[in-house]
Amino acid sequence: MTCISFLTDFGTKDGNVGVMKGVIWGIAPAVQISDLSHDITPQNILEAAFVLGRAAPYFPKDTIHLVVVDPGVGTGRRPMAAEIGPYRFVGPDNGVVTWVVSHADDMGWSQAFVHLDKPQYWLPEVSHVFHGRDIFAPVAAHLAKGAPIKAVGTPIEDPVLLALPEPVKRQDEILGEVIYIDHFGSLVTNIRSADIQADGKVSIEVRGMRVEGLVKTFGDREPGSLIALFSSTGDLILSVVNGSACHVLRGQVGDKVKISLSLE
Amino acid sequence: MTCISFLTDFGTKDGNVGVMKGVIWGIAPAVQISDLSHDITPQNILEAAFVLGRAAPYFPKDTIHLVVVDPGVGTGRRPMAAEIGPYRFVGPDNGVVTWVVSHADDMGWSQAFVHLDKPQYWLPEVSHVFHGRDIFAPVAAHLAKGAPIKAVGTPIEDPVLLALPEPVKRQDEILGEVIYIDHFGSLVTNIRSADIQADGKVSIEVRGMRVEGLVKTFGDREPGSLIALFSSTGDLILSVVNGSACHVLRGQVGDKVKISLSLE
Amino acid sequence: MTCISFLTDFGTKDGNVGVMKGVIWGIAPAVQISDLSHDITPQNILEAAFVLGRAAPYFPKDTIHLVVVDPGVGTGRRPMAAEIGPYRFVGPDNGVVTWVVSHADDMGWSQAFVHLDKPQYWLPEVSHVFHGRDIFAPVAAHLAKGAPIKAVGTPIEDPVLLALPEPVKRQDEILGEVIYIDHFGSLVTNIRSADIQADGKVSIEVRGMRVEGLVKTFGDREPGSLIALFSSTGDLILSVVNGSACHVLRGQVGDKVKISLSLE
Repeated sequence: MTCISFLTDFGTKDGNVGVMKGVIWGIAPAVQISDLSHDITPQNILEAAFVLGRAAPYFPKDTIHLVVVDPGVGTGRRPMAAEIGPYRFVGPDNGVVTWVVSHADDMGWSQAFVHLDKPQYWLPEVSHVFHGRDIFAPVAAHLAKGAPIKAVGTPIEDPVLLALPEPVKRQDEILGEVIYIDHFGSLVTNIRSADIQADGKVSIEVRGMRVEGLVKTFGDREPGSLIALFSSTGDLILSVVNGSACHVLRGQVGDKVKISLSLE
Repeated sequence: MTCISFLTDFGTKDGNVGVMKGVIWGIAPAVQISDLSHDITPQNILEAAFVLGRAAPYFPKDTIHLVVVDPGVGTGRRPMAAEIGPYRFVGPDNGVVTWVVSHADDMGWSQAFVHLDKPQYWLPEVSHVFHGRDIFAPVAAHLAKGAPIKAVGTPIEDPVLLALPEPVKRQDEILGEVIYIDHFGSLVTNIRSADIQADGKVSIEVRGMRVEGLVKTFGDREPGSLIALFSSTGDLILSVVNGSACHVLRGQVGDKVKISLSLE
Repeated sequence: MTCISFLTDFGTKDGNVGVMKGVIWGIAPAVQISDLSHDITPQNILEAAFVLGRAAPYFPKDTIHLVVVDPGVGTGRRPMAAEIGPYRFVGPDNGVVTWVVSHADDMGWSQAFVHLDKPQYWLPEVSHVFHGRDIFAPVAAHLAKGAPIKAVGTPIEDPVLLALPEPVKRQDEILGEVIYIDHFGSLVTNIRSADIQADGKVSIEVRGMRVEGLVKTFGDREPGSLIALFSSTGDLILSVVNGSACHVLRGQVGDKVKISLSLE
């Protein structure tokens, strides 16, 4: 049974998430749907791309990732589907697949993109403002039922990709930034575990505070301690044990993070 | 496979939504359940009725809409099921089906209502305060398994229906009001696309602001612009592009909206 | 089909709940998953234990309760599974099963616990910070597919159990406390319906307010009234009709509640 992961900025009050599931189950009644997030900051495509990029590799092969953060709905932006390695994606062509494509580049995965232009796979009536319901949900359902992506659209070669903030690496320091703040108030940086040599000494500065060394997990320090560690997806994060680094440091996306490296 | 849509004012912290799914799956293990919303303002029956009315038509035929916004639980208000056109409904007889009934009247759909009075379709013990768990979830599950609504209750002819706020239409103006505010801060009015002649000029006033003309979608204007357009379900809405009309205008449910119409 | 109930303190934005469902469906594609709550206060094991304890008995027999409130992830705390009466549990050995074990003691249910130490039931790579994804989700999925708990771990006899706040009962009074505040602002106390004699007169004091007598349900008093009644799971609660006792009384977990009993 194919699984659909489902990511939007719709919130969960208005019923639009539920409606899209109704549309999907009307076409593909047995498909499992995993809500990845519906709490993306409205219109924040980069945030959606990050959440999707971190989550996608943990889903079963053949999963269809349905992503609707779509401020350009009804304008010239193309509706899109993609096949990237073992996964498929359905959503607007606005860069939401950027992190996944970056991961696919690292993995050497195949990548194919189509412009959704076959109305026979859509609802009969298409609104100007809710392509999630009218185009993306039915297309995802048809893919789940077995339609190949070549059937639902016309190949394109130039999907929109966003500029990802890359850390600057020098001999003894790395200059990065905070790219996401999670539910526990941890500051997630764009510095990856592969960026830091395993046997060196590390000192991290953020918002005027300094953290010496990395720990393996939260419980390695006393509650209230500011710590630095790698997340479960390999990102350097700053956390407060049983607290919130975001609150303690008044951290924000975009905050600069400086790592000083030295041999021990 | 039958689908259940699920709408409450329970929030998602306390576990009551999950418990009701457990009860349903104990009776009908394979049924798909789509969370329509659990964030209805506590005890706000009219809000639930609106969300249900807008969403219901997009679900597969045979879907059972389970709605538990039930401030009168355990009092004289009747537990109810209904069969309205291709859909069934389970919940308190307090008006939550009002918008659906209004839509059914427009569509010429059949309508049948029953008072749930057959305890063999309920949990063995029924509390005074949680009929969602003890009556409505098991009845919905039995309907999903094939029980006809006539089996689960006794026909009634007088379901409770709420007074819906109707716009006042004059020759060259329409006086309506804000009836819902959505996740993106758009002000949803009770003025429908059918109320406005397609070829006229339109000017909209709300909270002392004026919007000239309608646009088709959000991206038709620059970020920050106040716009008027039709929602994906045909309601006139006021939005701020990539922002929140609710914040900008300090809009509230009940705000008056005046449309001036003129031939071009 | 086995059902999994799913309880965390992860929130719903970051995608980690969705990722765990992806991991589960990669192993057990048809299993139903009921989100019990993902809004547990971060690191609040006692709160999670309460929500689980109240909800668990309403799930179908054979349900697997997956609970990840895990501040000790990656430290010495044991990953655990349990079989308690008709249910199974998967999560950290930190006391999240305390209320369920208390209920099982009352019911005379069998209880068996295992330390999860069989990596063949885990994801191939295990992080230090997300055992929900790497250990608990795959173990729950294997249990759903039919693995017995003895296969996934080694028996232990000393699961961690928390001290539950017990009311003090005297001849004519009961001294309890607020242990949870629900979505509707009701103050849930640790006083149970069995603690109060059915035919006596009852007076309740909390935060300087006094409530005379118990009602059966919310609609028994006018909107705005402060009332005392039993919840659907038998806990004494304090509520404001169509309002919030939490807001009106500025109630908090830990508030003392005194019940005076007298024969009529």
